[in-house]
Amino acid sequence: MRKILVGFFMCLLMAGMVYAQEGAGMKDTFSVIHSRKSVRNFTGAPVGRTDLDRIIRAGMAAPSAVNAQPWSFVVVTERKKLDELAAGLPYARMLLKAGAAIIVCTDPDKAYDQNRDLAVIDASLAGENILLAIEALGLGGVWTAAYPYADRMNHVRTVLGIPQEVIPLNVTPVGVPTGADQPKDKYKPEKIHWEKW
Amino acid sequence: MRKILVGFFMCLLMAGMVYAQEGAGMKDTFSVIHSRKSVRNFTGAPVGRTDLDRIIRAGMAAPSAVNAQPWSFVVVTERKKLDELAAGLPYARMLLKAGAAIIVCTDPDKAYDQNRDLAVIDASLAGENILLAIEALGLGGVWTAAYPYADRMNHVRTVLGIPQEVIPLNVTPVGVPTGADQPKDKYKPEKIHWEKW
Repeated sequence: MRKILVGFFMCLLMAGMVYAQEGAGMKDTFSVIHSRKSVRNFTGAPVGRTDLDRIIRAGMAAPSAVNAQPWSFVVVTERKKLDELAAGLPYARMLLKAGAAIIVCTDPDKAYDQNRDLAVIDASLAGENILLAIEALGLGGVWTAAYPYADRMNHVRTVLGIPQEVIPLNVTPVGVPTGADQPKDKYKPEKIHWEKW
Repeated sequence: MRKILVGFFMCLLMAGMVYAQEGAGMKDTFSVIHSRKSVRNFTGAPVGRTDLDRIIRAGMAAPSAVNAQPWSFVVVTERKKLDELAAGLPYARMLLKAGAAIIVCTDPDKAYDQNRDLAVIDASLAGENILLAIEALGLGGVWTAAYPYADRMNHVRTVLGIPQEVIPLNVTPVGVPTGADQPKDKYKPEKIHWEKW
């Protein structure tokens, strides 16, 4: 009996090790979707390039109208540039403590039918994948709108050298969360219409 | 020694059972993001209300400008209505074999600043969460655009009784995939600009 227990616990130890290893990189999709929140409080710690690359790859996996992929991404980690962006964006002051910023851009000329609405929608889907990837990595982020505000878009274009025909859709600060921001429960059954409006 | 092995395998059996149970409902976020594809081929099998409810809840967990949540959702499972929708939507013929359709709607009057662009972006983020939730459940879906096409939006409004001021952004057929549709690798490093454009 004692030997059976020894075998049992040996296996348990191994299973625990496997589980811990998987847990480090794997997070259930529904948990991530529901635990994602707008993180505005960062510790000031840097964000590594490997993480940023994984986040952008997730963005590019989004669908787009007729697979046109009109999006592009500027990734900023330099302290000076993050501060310059913040200086002209009153709603993105959390950049001062963020480790990075991802600017999701879109080019209407590259969208299906050169349609600006489709360009914006396509890049928005990429932007949501990016927010979920940030959460999945245990980091925090928040969508701060550049589009449709001409003054904000022009500031972002000037600081980052983005061409005039490209729309900087948002500025997403990315950082290590302090833990101050928590997800909201936004479930409202009255917003669901079954079978017809 | 034999008893140690007996214990070891007893535990392995239990671990396997736990893993199988978790696996049924849990899928890693990055895997889901990268395995999501536009599914246009369905078996014709129905989609249960519990799954549809989980999918819509995921949609409502998306962020929106100043948390305005201008979105709403029509969920259709009736064969007759799905066929009626398909009749006026040449790019959504896969509705004929889908088990359900989710129509993601948005109301500019309810968006921050009554801004139509923000209303469309907010609902687009909900729409992407919906596509990921569909994939996470082992189902298939595809975003077919209603907005910005007046004729398609009007057809959807007529069939489902959606008010004129509400924008039906898309029609997302949902169903059991035949397996014919596979994800694309859309990673293009030239779309990433490090530090500046």
